[in-house]
Amino acid sequence: MTQRTKFYHAGCAVCVDAERRFADALDPDRYDVEVVHLGEAPDRIAEAEAAGVKSVPAFVVDGHPYHINFGASLDDLKGGA
Amino acid sequence: MTQRTKFYHAGCAVCVDAERRFADALDPDRYDVEVVHLGEAPDRIAEAEAAGVKSVPAFVVDGHPYHINFGASLDDLKGGA
Repeated sequence: MTQRTKFYHAGCAVCVDAERRFADALDPDRYDVEVVHLGEAPDRIAEAEAAGVKSVPAFVVDGHPYHINFGASLDDLKGGA
Repeated sequence: MTQRTKFYHAGCAVCVDAERRFADALDPDRYDVEVVHLGEAPDRIAEAEAAGVKSVPAFVVDGHPYHINFGASLDDLKGGA
């Protein structure tokens, strides 16, 4: 059974690199990664925030947020939403 | 051919969780992860620093550093080394 994982990003260079590097690197037999572009789906910013995401790019695995380096803060995205 | 990847950490709670979550999640067919405990191998702090690592836990993949959340800064580790 694969584990549902979300990868939140906003299309910035840090995000795209982290996506290519990590979202594609997770073992497909165990992880089902949904990629969420918060710049294109600003309605899902609240969902990311509720999961504890403070900046993007970030994974949410099993309810835990994992921020990868620093691309942009959610507050900046909300400001631009 | 698997890609050599390093996971630097210092045994802190954030590090151990990130290791369990990510170091074990990378596709073993494509990634060969070496786990480096900088608390036990302080002589490798310089190596991590040279790869651009500023805090742990962090991956270095293909020469690029990926910091996962924030456990401890390398400066703190050096102070305690």
